[in-house]
Amino acid sequence: MLKVGLLGAGRIGQVHAVNIAGNRRSTLVAVSDVQAEAAAELAARHGAQARTSDEILADPAIDAVLVATSTDTHSDLIEAATAAGKAVLCEKPVDLSLDRAQACLDRVSATGRPVMIGFNRRFDPNFAALKTASLAGEIGKAELLSLTSFDPAPPPVSYIKVSGGLFRDMMIHDFDMANFLMDDRPVSLRAVGSSLVDPEIGAAGDVDTAVVTLTYADGRIAVIKNSRRAVYGYDQRIELLGAEGLLQANNMLENTVVKSTTAGVVSAKPTYFFLERYMPAYAAEWEAFVAAMLDGQAMPVTLEDGIAALALAEAATRSARSGESVAL
Amino acid sequence: MLKVGLLGAGRIGQVHAVNIAGNRRSTLVAVSDVQAEAAAELAARHGAQARTSDEILADPAIDAVLVATSTDTHSDLIEAATAAGKAVLCEKPVDLSLDRAQACLDRVSATGRPVMIGFNRRFDPNFAALKTASLAGEIGKAELLSLTSFDPAPPPVSYIKVSGGLFRDMMIHDFDMANFLMDDRPVSLRAVGSSLVDPEIGAAGDVDTAVVTLTYADGRIAVIKNSRRAVYGYDQRIELLGAEGLLQANNMLENTVVKSTTAGVVSAKPTYFFLERYMPAYAAEWEAFVAAMLDGQAMPVTLEDGIAALALAEAATRSARSGESVAL
Amino acid sequence: MLKVGLLGAGRIGQVHAVNIAGNRRSTLVAVSDVQAEAAAELAARHGAQARTSDEILADPAIDAVLVATSTDTHSDLIEAATAAGKAVLCEKPVDLSLDRAQACLDRVSATGRPVMIGFNRRFDPNFAALKTASLAGEIGKAELLSLTSFDPAPPPVSYIKVSGGLFRDMMIHDFDMANFLMDDRPVSLRAVGSSLVDPEIGAAGDVDTAVVTLTYADGRIAVIKNSRRAVYGYDQRIELLGAEGLLQANNMLENTVVKSTTAGVVSAKPTYFFLERYMPAYAAEWEAFVAAMLDGQAMPVTLEDGIAALALAEAATRSARSGESVAL
Amino acid sequence: MLKVGLLGAGRIGQVHAVNIAGNRRSTLVAVSDVQAEAAAELAARHGAQARTSDEILADPAIDAVLVATSTDTHSDLIEAATAAGKAVLCEKPVDLSLDRAQACLDRVSATGRPVMIGFNRRFDPNFAALKTASLAGEIGKAELLSLTSFDPAPPPVSYIKVSGGLFRDMMIHDFDMANFLMDDRPVSLRAVGSSLVDPEIGAAGDVDTAVVTLTYADGRIAVIKNSRRAVYGYDQRIELLGAEGLLQANNMLENTVVKSTTAGVVSAKPTYFFLERYMPAYAAEWEAFVAAMLDGQAMPVTLEDGIAALALAEAATRSARSGESVAL
Repeated sequence: MLKVGLLGAGRIGQVHAVNIAGNRRSTLVAVSDVQAEAAAELAARHGAQARTSDEILADPAIDAVLVATSTDTHSDLIEAATAAGKAVLCEKPVDLSLDRAQACLDRVSATGRPVMIGFNRRFDPNFAALKTASLAGEIGKAELLSLTSFDPAPPPVSYIKVSGGLFRDMMIHDFDMANFLMDDRPVSLRAVGSSLVDPEIGAAGDVDTAVVTLTYADGRIAVIKNSRRAVYGYDQRIELLGAEGLLQANNMLENTVVKSTTAGVVSAKPTYFFLERYMPAYAAEWEAFVAAMLDGQAMPVTLEDGIAALALAEAATRSARSGESVAL
Repeated sequence: MLKVGLLGAGRIGQVHAVNIAGNRRSTLVAVSDVQAEAAAELAARHGAQARTSDEILADPAIDAVLVATSTDTHSDLIEAATAAGKAVLCEKPVDLSLDRAQACLDRVSATGRPVMIGFNRRFDPNFAALKTASLAGEIGKAELLSLTSFDPAPPPVSYIKVSGGLFRDMMIHDFDMANFLMDDRPVSLRAVGSSLVDPEIGAAGDVDTAVVTLTYADGRIAVIKNSRRAVYGYDQRIELLGAEGLLQANNMLENTVVKSTTAGVVSAKPTYFFLERYMPAYAAEWEAFVAAMLDGQAMPVTLEDGIAALALAEAATRSARSGESVAL
Repeated sequence: MLKVGLLGAGRIGQVHAVNIAGNRRSTLVAVSDVQAEAAAELAARHGAQARTSDEILADPAIDAVLVATSTDTHSDLIEAATAAGKAVLCEKPVDLSLDRAQACLDRVSATGRPVMIGFNRRFDPNFAALKTASLAGEIGKAELLSLTSFDPAPPPVSYIKVSGGLFRDMMIHDFDMANFLMDDRPVSLRAVGSSLVDPEIGAAGDVDTAVVTLTYADGRIAVIKNSRRAVYGYDQRIELLGAEGLLQANNMLENTVVKSTTAGVVSAKPTYFFLERYMPAYAAEWEAFVAAMLDGQAMPVTLEDGIAALALAEAATRSARSGESVAL
Repeated sequence: MLKVGLLGAGRIGQVHAVNIAGNRRSTLVAVSDVQAEAAAELAARHGAQARTSDEILADPAIDAVLVATSTDTHSDLIEAATAAGKAVLCEKPVDLSLDRAQACLDRVSATGRPVMIGFNRRFDPNFAALKTASLAGEIGKAELLSLTSFDPAPPPVSYIKVSGGLFRDMMIHDFDMANFLMDDRPVSLRAVGSSLVDPEIGAAGDVDTAVVTLTYADGRIAVIKNSRRAVYGYDQRIELLGAEGLLQANNMLENTVVKSTTAGVVSAKPTYFFLERYMPAYAAEWEAFVAAMLDGQAMPVTLEDGIAALALAEAATRSARSGESVAL
């Protein structure tokens, strides 16, 4: 039984708390948050204790911590937790700075403690089934990957300003999915981005619509499309063209009802946001972390994976600004 | 090259004229209609002559006639044409009276001339593909057949009054499809019908919504659903459950565009009417008739098939009135 | 907080235990089972106590019991529980005997305690969305209802023998759905049934494939199709044709991956069994029971509803045997 | 009635012949081909005369010519035909050389004769419906366009060598579609391409898999994906994300049959090649040309459009080689 401390009791922390408590091989022991009340409430709901993060890291009875705090604390907490001997599952991204993330990796490596980065989409049942089919050779050699990833609506501009920008905040998921699905790292990257959704996003120096093309040493190509706004819901799709076929992972819909009238044939919309779409993914992600810990397997997503995605985000940010391709 | 006379220049006659003229192995020689002007216009469009039906039947240069006149003339014209040595493709139904149709069969048999009944749905590419898959054993033994057949809107009540009723006029297609797909004739039948769409249809002694269940000697079951109104278009679907799977033939849509907005995900409607949906079926039907004639094959749909469907329609009419099942 | 005793720790009892424990307004206090070990294990998993059903009914601290025992105990337990002052959620069917179920209703009525029958499909998000759209008038007046309900594989013949037959055991769900969706009770019924899937089912006096047609006083019609075998998964679909459109609730699929190769375009299968398909329905059903209890609402599915469905099942059994229609 | 000469009796010329002959307002008068026999056969099939192209251009009774010859003759024939006073519908591309095409435009402009370039996809009913919906504002302002265009199998390398390369030969259709759907010309372009399908294509100096990103002055973005091989059929899809929704035009399938077995749920494949998929588009294209001629409307696709697409193809060829973006 894995004893777990949860750092961060916000929206995503609450999701993790349910999964930690619901997993037969893990227990939620303690919760911390900068807002003590939030930690107290979440802890109470799951029979855990509210503590400070320092107390949690200092408790020798706690095996692992899940870091679900704000991005600017991630690398510090990963370092502190591993230094305290804990295993870590940390939400993405590792850091907004590639240098800082790299330093974090160096310090973590010295401790030898396992760290997993929470790229939840790898664990989405649909995307995982696509990956399994690809690995099984069902479409032959994969050649052209397309990732579509549109949010239903942009976050507040105040969030945009501290987010690190679309490529680090949003497309980083897709960079990781490209690394995951292509089983390789790209050799060059071209990015274009625009502020079409909200001029204030542009005024803040960020883009809200972007396309990145990745090329691989063996000639394979990946394309990522992002938009901060798809009014019909959270649009998360993957296409992978191979020598012997095409794999597509489509959206999950709110329900299966279809209405046919004179106005047309109307289906339900995609599930509206990531908490709905990726709820099963978060549970499977936690299950994978627990399995790695208790069954002695390697972490399915490593700190190196987190840094690799961040490196692509940083390169894309540069390419979008310069208009030129970036060699990786 | 098959030389063809077309009897009837109405809506469906015009469809047949295009197919006769467009087929490389048939020529449209002459057209007749009770409205001479209609015949003249259609004949001119395809480089044929406008004549009376008597003239067409008397012309030894004409090999075959296509009967696309009003239902009450079908059996007379089939008899006259075969007596004159012509091969015949006649629109469904053979007749509204089962006795009259049976007498027609007797007289045709005496001539030895081939007659095909125009059950166009057998030649719909979707339904034909379903039949082919079933025959190939792709779902094992077929056990439960469902036919959904909804018209977009009811015909005028004036037409209803001379139509022979829903079972003879509309469901006769489905009875033939059941015979075609189950490769057997049912042993009993239960029908229910209501007038829900238009009270005038009920006042005229007919129904506009009906369900018929057919049972077969080996226990298999078929269900047919008809409605005179499906405001979203011509709804024509088949499902066949077998020991090893399910086959479905779905509607053809007006186009493949899908629109996702806050209002939902909207696809195009089914093609609106039988002339759109079954246009390829009519061409394939004619192709099959020509092939049977010129390549010495058996007619793919016989006069006996037409009578078998009519017998089911008559039994269904009785069952719907009595509320009881009818042994066949 | 509703304090709940669970009677029955089998497959479906385990599903209910998770929902009782997972609901914020209910607690699982005690579990009983004829196999004491099963009760002990399930109780331990949820921090409840293992007791006998008598002990549970006698405990004044328990507000409600969930009856998930074998069918032959349902009416006895409903009576005993209500006599003991408990509210009851009982799995369907109330009883295999209509007389016995009616007697149960009489006794329960005398106690004034609320009883809900577990027709889980009413709470399936897809079917519930269809019902909501119908109630909202989105397709005008409903006229023709079609229920397709195929199990992936037949149960053991030993189960068939004590099941009460397909109509009472399996189609009873569809009878309830017809009552639910048509908001009325039918006036006549026609049933046909065959043993096509497994001859031993026929030898046991039951059918494995059946079609029932229901007619309503206002002329509306409903058709139910059941098969004990759909090798591709649990096939649960509804279609409702109305004056202004069609509503369809389709299957939920295992995932959203589509693979296109030379062999065709392959999607995932429907979820394989009722525990997967109806998992959200069971949670919503329990939520509805809790809401009725704590918020003082009427039970959303009553004992009368259970008896109404059973009456249709009994009539269908007779109709399938006699071949005649049954007035209701 | 438009009198038409057809230059070129090959595969695509035969398609055009059927449409010219089948249109009520046009007549096929004459056919030429470098292979006299092919011209003779095609002419005979449609009651036209086989002549040389010089004879056709010299015949004052001929109003218009349709140029369906090999690409290297297009600009010469457009010039000769317009100089002879004919209207012209010419297959794409105008020429493989942008300079030559520009010179052609200059000479044609001097004649004042109308020329239409055969970008058939604009007339595909699905794509046309998407454009109509976009123009009608159904998804608000269009922001991000994605074009997927995969051939089922690569042409022979001998063809590749004279084709002008993927960007001029294949993606030119998509460049025109981008111009058509975005109602603007892009300001910059980034292309990547690889030889993944067939190493001989790479040895011939061409690519078989490519992605191009186009940016517009107002920040909008378009992405085009091409592959010479999609073993499941001709994959032709469009997605257009707008401020208020998403429009998708999906593939047309061979039929509507769906088979569910233990192996999954199998639909038909996309229609296999452009002659099947775009058959209705070619007919609509011809209809549009005839309408422009006889009803005094402007040509729906101009020689300028052909040159604009060619300019993008040339820029993409350069970008794919240099790895850099190209300003337009």
